[in-house]
Amino acid sequence: MKFNNINVYVSSKAVIGKNVKIGDNTIIYDNVEIGDNSIIANNCVLGEPLNSYYSDESYVNPKTVFGRNTLIRSHAIIYAGSQFGDFFMTGHTVLIREKTIMGTHCSVGSFADVEGYSTFGNYCRMHSYSNIGMESKLGNFVFVYPYVNFTNDPHPPSNVCVGPTIGDYSQIAAHSVLLPGVQIGKNCLIGVNTTVINNVPDDSVVSGNPGKIIGRTRWIKSKEKENTSHYPWMYHFDKGMPWKGIGYEQWLKENPDF
Amino acid sequence: MKFNNINVYVSSKAVIGKNVKIGDNTIIYDNVEIGDNSIIANNCVLGEPLNSYYSDESYVNPKTVFGRNTLIRSHAIIYAGSQFGDFFMTGHTVLIREKTIMGTHCSVGSFADVEGYSTFGNYCRMHSYSNIGMESKLGNFVFVYPYVNFTNDPHPPSNVCVGPTIGDYSQIAAHSVLLPGVQIGKNCLIGVNTTVINNVPDDSVVSGNPGKIIGRTRWIKSKEKENTSHYPWMYHFDKGMPWKGIGYEQWLKENPDF
Amino acid sequence: MKFNNINVYVSSKAVIGKNVKIGDNTIIYDNVEIGDNSIIANNCVLGEPLNSYYSDESYVNPKTVFGRNTLIRSHAIIYAGSQFGDFFMTGHTVLIREKTIMGTHCSVGSFADVEGYSTFGNYCRMHSYSNIGMESKLGNFVFVYPYVNFTNDPHPPSNVCVGPTIGDYSQIAAHSVLLPGVQIGKNCLIGVNTTVINNVPDDSVVSGNPGKIIGRTRWIKSKEKENTSHYPWMYHFDKGMPWKGIGYEQWLKENPDF
Repeated sequence: MKFNNINVYVSSKAVIGKNVKIGDNTIIYDNVEIGDNSIIANNCVLGEPLNSYYSDESYVNPKTVFGRNTLIRSHAIIYAGSQFGDFFMTGHTVLIREKTIMGTHCSVGSFADVEGYSTFGNYCRMHSYSNIGMESKLGNFVFVYPYVNFTNDPHPPSNVCVGPTIGDYSQIAAHSVLLPGVQIGKNCLIGVNTTVINNVPDDSVVSGNPGKIIGRTRWIKSKEKENTSHYPWMYHFDKGMPWKGIGYEQWLKENPDF
Repeated sequence: MKFNNINVYVSSKAVIGKNVKIGDNTIIYDNVEIGDNSIIANNCVLGEPLNSYYSDESYVNPKTVFGRNTLIRSHAIIYAGSQFGDFFMTGHTVLIREKTIMGTHCSVGSFADVEGYSTFGNYCRMHSYSNIGMESKLGNFVFVYPYVNFTNDPHPPSNVCVGPTIGDYSQIAAHSVLLPGVQIGKNCLIGVNTTVINNVPDDSVVSGNPGKIIGRTRWIKSKEKENTSHYPWMYHFDKGMPWKGIGYEQWLKENPDF
Repeated sequence: MKFNNINVYVSSKAVIGKNVKIGDNTIIYDNVEIGDNSIIANNCVLGEPLNSYYSDESYVNPKTVFGRNTLIRSHAIIYAGSQFGDFFMTGHTVLIREKTIMGTHCSVGSFADVEGYSTFGNYCRMHSYSNIGMESKLGNFVFVYPYVNFTNDPHPPSNVCVGPTIGDYSQIAAHSVLLPGVQIGKNCLIGVNTTVINNVPDDSVVSGNPGKIIGRTRWIKSKEKENTSHYPWMYHFDKGMPWKGIGYEQWLKENPDF
């Protein structure tokens, strides 16, 4: 239904892999590269030119690279100058700015705004309406829930731009705000509606405004299995995860460098 | 101005009622049914195929039903497999996923994200940027204000999905978050920026993070009439309500089963 | 790349200035006026007709005026009946309703929703996802950060509509909610995730839920210069500001009426 080749514009300078589907009304600008077996749905804009395009007559669109098995849902706007690993996936109406570097298997939810100049590990998930400010650094398996805001200006407006850093496996629940430059460790859980103002050590649970450490993630009991902690969550959740079928323990053994 | 039949795509398998207007650049996929006297504005996508469409070669788009007198503003994306009663209305750029069941006279504001697998009574209003997670249940006349988030995963990420339940007439003010599975009674007022962590009995006012019951709705004085409580609000507000012109009391008498 | 004249619709009743570029798939309705040297990017809708258009057969689109050097990025929806001064700029996918009056050099970030019937001074900046409710009044140089919500109904739902008023130079940080009718003075800083429930005098810092005055802006030390306060910020920040190159002090002398 979506691939009728109606009102599609693909630059002659784009490089489209094998078995790539492109939806109606989609625009693909210069120097976009799309890996094999990808789906770009309808009404998307890939390789949106940077701001200097409007003023610089000799503007050249920087390269934008999507890996294999990409799935971009409709109405995405993705700027030129970013790079996404294999199996990248988006919801609808996402906005991703330049100099965004994502590992493999990352996803960006509907209405999310990734402001660029940030790095993401593998298997990160940004849910709907998440807003990742510039100069953020996310490890692997970091999940960010709706309306979360990564800020970067300590005294708005100023010339300082210092984003948050998040360790592997940490979960940032809905409506939380991370203040500029905070460093969150590995395996943390930032509760809903938390304002994180200080650095957070590994395995901490943080809640409140201002956010305070209220415990350790291993203290949180599972709702699925009695007398078990839900965290580290990797032992209890495998949907879309690389340890699906073999378990986290076994996967770790097979991937010692991760 | 909006109905020039430019770049419109309507599936031959869609069923369009009498006196339906369809705006430019709008896409209507298979098995969408639109009731009489409806307006679908420009740049909309109705009957967006489910995820399995991308992988299943024998995919058939499930039926999507819009009642009579529907008004969908521009840039809406509404998945296949949902059902909307008469007089359904949206703002711009809304996203509604599959298995959303809405009664009559519901509205969804601009940039709202209704994630599907949820039920809504009649006359519900979701305002801009509201995010209704899966497995939510709303009664009649429930109004949800900007940036409100209905969550459903108690320990993210987990395999549990249990949404909130909201009773008739309750109001969920801006920036509130409802934790998974909370049950909010009838006639409640959840104040702005509240994190609701426990069940809430009928007629309660809840505020804070964590949310606490701070009073009864009937204690709230009207700003419009002296020495009167504003709540239950149905006695003081009738814009777009079925008791407009006759009053809530009379309407209740005439609609004893509501 | 963006200006190929593909699927563009411009009403014969629109007035387009000199040296104006219009992107592909953009729609410009009746009685829109665009000043010289402007750029309207792709997939925009300017002069979106008001609600009465759908029911009134004699509907005439009210005038919409954009000044010179306007830059509107893709997927903006801007209703008829608003007015924007020179150098107006937007991000992507903004929504601006009727009877919005903005001075010069204002900007509206991606996914922002300006609900109309509001006035803005010069050099205001609404960042991504900001939601400016009806009947708001902003002075000059007011910056509003992501997810901020200006509310206007004290007892939802009611017939009262009274928006906030914000003085010159004040900064409203991310995720804050302003309750209906609050008056915020000049040079204030509303911290992140603050619920402002009372009026705020000039030069105050407000934080918390409910918001409390926690100090004076001049007490906040700069992160850029030792032994200096960052506020008033105009002495330390000039990106895009009219005092760039000459300093705020000198600019004030040259603009005594500002």
